[in-house]
Amino acid sequence: MHLESAMWTDVQGVETDLAMVPIGSTEQHGPHAPLGTDTLNAETVAETAAERLDDPVVVSPAVPVGIAEEHRQFSGTLWTSESTFRSYVRDIVGSLASHGFDRVVLVNGHGGNAAALREVAGAITRHDDAYAVPFTWFEEVGDYTSRMGHGGPLETALLQHVNPDHVREGCLDDAAAEASDRWGDWQGRVNLAFDSAEFTENGVVGDPREASADLGEELLDATSEALMELLETVAEHDPDRPTHR
Amino acid sequence: MHLESAMWTDVQGVETDLAMVPIGSTEQHGPHAPLGTDTLNAETVAETAAERLDDPVVVSPAVPVGIAEEHRQFSGTLWTSESTFRSYVRDIVGSLASHGFDRVVLVNGHGGNAAALREVAGAITRHDDAYAVPFTWFEEVGDYTSRMGHGGPLETALLQHVNPDHVREGCLDDAAAEASDRWGDWQGRVNLAFDSAEFTENGVVGDPREASADLGEELLDATSEALMELLETVAEHDPDRPTHR
Amino acid sequence: MHLESAMWTDVQGVETDLAMVPIGSTEQHGPHAPLGTDTLNAETVAETAAERLDDPVVVSPAVPVGIAEEHRQFSGTLWTSESTFRSYVRDIVGSLASHGFDRVVLVNGHGGNAAALREVAGAITRHDDAYAVPFTWFEEVGDYTSRMGHGGPLETALLQHVNPDHVREGCLDDAAAEASDRWGDWQGRVNLAFDSAEFTENGVVGDPREASADLGEELLDATSEALMELLETVAEHDPDRPTHR
Amino acid sequence: MHLESAMWTDVQGVETDLAMVPIGSTEQHGPHAPLGTDTLNAETVAETAAERLDDPVVVSPAVPVGIAEEHRQFSGTLWTSESTFRSYVRDIVGSLASHGFDRVVLVNGHGGNAAALREVAGAITRHDDAYAVPFTWFEEVGDYTSRMGHGGPLETALLQHVNPDHVREGCLDDAAAEASDRWGDWQGRVNLAFDSAEFTENGVVGDPREASADLGEELLDATSEALMELLETVAEHDPDRPTHR
Amino acid sequence: MHLESAMWTDVQGVETDLAMVPIGSTEQHGPHAPLGTDTLNAETVAETAAERLDDPVVVSPAVPVGIAEEHRQFSGTLWTSESTFRSYVRDIVGSLASHGFDRVVLVNGHGGNAAALREVAGAITRHDDAYAVPFTWFEEVGDYTSRMGHGGPLETALLQHVNPDHVREGCLDDAAAEASDRWGDWQGRVNLAFDSAEFTENGVVGDPREASADLGEELLDATSEALMELLETVAEHDPDRPTHR
Amino acid sequence: MHLESAMWTDVQGVETDLAMVPIGSTEQHGPHAPLGTDTLNAETVAETAAERLDDPVVVSPAVPVGIAEEHRQFSGTLWTSESTFRSYVRDIVGSLASHGFDRVVLVNGHGGNAAALREVAGAITRHDDAYAVPFTWFEEVGDYTSRMGHGGPLETALLQHVNPDHVREGCLDDAAAEASDRWGDWQGRVNLAFDSAEFTENGVVGDPREASADLGEELLDATSEALMELLETVAEHDPDRPTHR
Repeated sequence: MHLESAMWTDVQGVETDLAMVPIGSTEQHGPHAPLGTDTLNAETVAETAAERLDDPVVVSPAVPVGIAEEHRQFSGTLWTSESTFRSYVRDIVGSLASHGFDRVVLVNGHGGNAAALREVAGAITRHDDAYAVPFTWFEEVGDYTSRMGHGGPLETALLQHVNPDHVREGCLDDAAAEASDRWGDWQGRVNLAFDSAEFTENGVVGDPREASADLGEELLDATSEALMELLETVAEHDPDRPTHR
Repeated sequence: MHLESAMWTDVQGVETDLAMVPIGSTEQHGPHAPLGTDTLNAETVAETAAERLDDPVVVSPAVPVGIAEEHRQFSGTLWTSESTFRSYVRDIVGSLASHGFDRVVLVNGHGGNAAALREVAGAITRHDDAYAVPFTWFEEVGDYTSRMGHGGPLETALLQHVNPDHVREGCLDDAAAEASDRWGDWQGRVNLAFDSAEFTENGVVGDPREASADLGEELLDATSEALMELLETVAEHDPDRPTHR
Repeated sequence: MHLESAMWTDVQGVETDLAMVPIGSTEQHGPHAPLGTDTLNAETVAETAAERLDDPVVVSPAVPVGIAEEHRQFSGTLWTSESTFRSYVRDIVGSLASHGFDRVVLVNGHGGNAAALREVAGAITRHDDAYAVPFTWFEEVGDYTSRMGHGGPLETALLQHVNPDHVREGCLDDAAAEASDRWGDWQGRVNLAFDSAEFTENGVVGDPREASADLGEELLDATSEALMELLETVAEHDPDRPTHR
Repeated sequence: MHLESAMWTDVQGVETDLAMVPIGSTEQHGPHAPLGTDTLNAETVAETAAERLDDPVVVSPAVPVGIAEEHRQFSGTLWTSESTFRSYVRDIVGSLASHGFDRVVLVNGHGGNAAALREVAGAITRHDDAYAVPFTWFEEVGDYTSRMGHGGPLETALLQHVNPDHVREGCLDDAAAEASDRWGDWQGRVNLAFDSAEFTENGVVGDPREASADLGEELLDATSEALMELLETVAEHDPDRPTHR
Repeated sequence: MHLESAMWTDVQGVETDLAMVPIGSTEQHGPHAPLGTDTLNAETVAETAAERLDDPVVVSPAVPVGIAEEHRQFSGTLWTSESTFRSYVRDIVGSLASHGFDRVVLVNGHGGNAAALREVAGAITRHDDAYAVPFTWFEEVGDYTSRMGHGGPLETALLQHVNPDHVREGCLDDAAAEASDRWGDWQGRVNLAFDSAEFTENGVVGDPREASADLGEELLDATSEALMELLETVAEHDPDRPTHR
Repeated sequence: MHLESAMWTDVQGVETDLAMVPIGSTEQHGPHAPLGTDTLNAETVAETAAERLDDPVVVSPAVPVGIAEEHRQFSGTLWTSESTFRSYVRDIVGSLASHGFDRVVLVNGHGGNAAALREVAGAITRHDDAYAVPFTWFEEVGDYTSRMGHGGPLETALLQHVNPDHVREGCLDDAAAEASDRWGDWQGRVNLAFDSAEFTENGVVGDPREASADLGEELLDATSEALMELLETVAEHDPDRPTHR
């Protein structure tokens, strides 16, 4: 049940304690993919899992702006501070929990949000009246995960499958031509860069020409399957904290 | 230009310093209108003005959760604290300004957001590198404003015109039957109530049966006209602060 | 019972759960009225109601500095940030409530404080151990309210009635000569201005020559009557929050 | 020049960069002295020094509620958190400085405020556009300082001299009878107590019967003399921070 | 140069802009390794690199308490909130930078600190007057990294090499017997656990019997070599932020 | 029991509710004493009292960076904001209390920390689940306290007794030659200075040549005796807050 289009009287009657909050971002994704890529994809994954799951699950509107200061040199990128982002998510989960939807999966579309989501999920689970875990969709597509990049094959493919109008196919060659091979500027295991403009000319990492609508469908099947399994596990999971030793 | 669907390379080329941030809310709107009413309507108004305006204007994704704790007793309502809300809006405006879009109209769909938006617009204008003003769409529909209510004729009509699938027509009689006449519980000019459940049974204030798609069209014309005039004024307005006396 | 002049042993014995906190401001009021106008008038109204009310009510000292950054270009104006102001008021109400005075009216003398007071009263009522509502004196003087202005007829008249030494009668003509007609710089319903120096030369809005001590007496009678009714209502009001639906 | 009663046009013309902010408290002072003792006395001292000083100095309204949680068990005591208090003072000093009054003495009437005032004065001086120092009146009365107590001879005497109506003479014997000899509950140099109710029955420390209006006059002469000397020194003091070594 | 034992006059003369801040934690490490394991190891690595590096580098005292709430069910574990931790680190780096040591490596001994350190390093680099990167020692030991665990072979070995008195050899069998094989309680790539007591009985993950002093020496050589290379790279790295595109 | 070197299984078995947190600072102490003087001395005093006390007491790692912005002009000095410092200490005490060590003495080595420690101890005692008091070692050495200075006889002597390698004896004459006689720049009882560089050339106050290892031993005996008495008193002290009056 998607809250945006539901009446409160519908929500009153739904029998579940499961909810999802899609977590997006508005940030550059190269010359071929839109600034809203992460939001669109997070919504896609959450909605697909919600539709396919036998049991009901509440879906909140997507958080449209996240932690994307690393892309700030590229026009149109929006971001909030990490602490504002965490507060925004925490408040949303808190209001979901007030209605009894207190087992919450944060369905994330942006790598830059992941650490902050893990932190806030811990705070919620330990100190608030809810249990929350983050789920980042492209980490749950098997071996494809290693080809993630930024504006790369995975994100582009999922858009091509579900939101094909949002991909500018004619720019794929340009996107690939100036893309960098790797996220970051590394010395050993340390990323020396804090802004993506330090290592990519056009904002792209990876080769989006490897994307296809078929690949997008495959990715969506894989990640929504993983998300459904997570939801079923969370529904049964004991959220109580361990006792002191 | 709507950022969600634009590429950063498009944004780089747009010649304007004007931007709009639609500000919504996810909150009960009675048994006939969806929880996303305020977001949908804010998006409608911003997008309409953007389309009709001769000059380009950047439109960010809508802020989907706002200050709606007053509706917390109604299932599905989401909210953030006022300070989190202000920080979220301020950060978004700050990132818009970093790209040169530093004259920003906050296009608001929810009365409960209005005071906080005025406060944060003042902070932005006085202390940050941008000029911002809030615009609440239903305050700019002439005499109709007085019939606003909550889930009442105006909000319902705008949905009927633009998002008719989101209105549950069969529930309008029920909505009206249990609606209250007036927002609040008043002693003189003081509203004694802090939660809408103190004065409305089903969340509705006003009679949504007075709504129609035609009225919605009329409202949209009026408010988008007012918004366009505001944008044109803001484009010419001197944002510098006065000197000390 | 005014706390400033009471002994704690007096307060221990008072049988009430009602309290008032006068909320003032130190800000320019033109060449004829003092910077302390709002504080003086808030104190006047609170004290008059306390005296005339049959039942006891505790009165705290006035908060002397509020949200007045909008007047910062005029010498002598003092202000705090909105968040500091809310915290200061919230802490004071919390300490009143700790002694059993947990039904609190915030008696306000400054329009710029009103939105922040409504916000903090909501936070107190929903999350702390007290019930609080704001009361802005010049909103409760019937049709006169529309003539409020700034340093205009109403504020000046109340000073003339109660604190005549604080009005510089010889400057009234000057005050009126350079006054503006209207608060703000409006495009439709949007105030484009954030600083009063954007629309008034000498800080005055309205014509203070319309003031008189007689008018002041009339205003005081009206507003203190309204405040007494509010106090009586608050004393009987059910502060419990509604149950979830 | 006391800001409360001044017009902004007066303040515009005053030639000084000196200001004083009286810092009070609303807290129990035994059965004989009012809750407003600290505020009244801080105002007395600041106003006396302002009158006697040859050069002009701006005086803001007194901060009426300070750090007094230690007296919270005694009815009528009001307090704010330490951080709120510091923010309130810092904002006031910041607005004074915006008008050119950027050498500020915080004239304090309450021992519990002293450490927080020193901290905030340091923050202002190092990081804001002003120089500020705290002055606690009863620390500047020579050997009398050691007899301070709480609601004791010094505070009572100053009230008797300037605000005699605020002292309840008939309660002095009672005040003394249940007073404690010493502030705190000490193990070596460590005060084990955090609330005054841990060591005083009626809130009094010291013997207020030792007070007299004559003593009050003597105290006022001494402390206002010290304050005047401080103001003169501050007027000449180099507020620039030292260079790095 | 270790600041704890240096005189300020020494520091004044050191010619470098490089500094290290060892970042530890006080948290359970099983029955065989001390609560201070992470601090001891972070200090070891930082000091070794400082000694072996040809050029001078300033070393601050170690931050002894970090983000370890996940171990709170085990006696003696200390922690701070993530935001307090970040502020503490940020302030320390800010003071280092004030003396010209504005290229700072945060030498980390605890996995739970890593995400917060990356976040605060980004904030410092983008918004303060310094460049900072985190370095987590056990991520820089080649293939051994995969055997990290908690209180496992790597941490134990480094202690055995440098701080052998801090390892309780007689408890290694017990430590291994009740250890868990894997950090976390996983559903796909999502860790369902937020407290280590959810998946380990005695706090250990991995088999500390695989540790040896020789292994510790090998680990120290590898990680300090990596750290030296990082320091040399940071010394040459351009800390300026990219320009807007 | 020092937590850094204890296993959690040891801590689980310790029968006490007493704990100490040594509170240090990293700040200039002249040309003869190290930046870590305050940390070293706080650790010395806490550890000595822990060893000599018959009953067990838990000792946390020392807080190594405190409130030392006043020494910022001297190279190598580190500091945090006061609010960060208080949060860091409060979180540590909170985690100690979670394990049952809820009577905590903050063993302080730096005068600049004292007021903030008193404030945070009050907050902990009133609002958290622990009782805490600060103890500043050099305030508990009888008449010697008056000779404290900065980098003066007392601090130097304690180092000479316990950490003689950390004192640079050859610099004592230089230290004394440029030392100032008195901490601060006083007008009456008001310290006009906020940075020590305003009144001392080399950072020293007092004559460190008066120090000796024998004096250090005497000081340590005195202060650790006082600390032991305090611990015994705290162990018996009723931490409950008084009832309202």
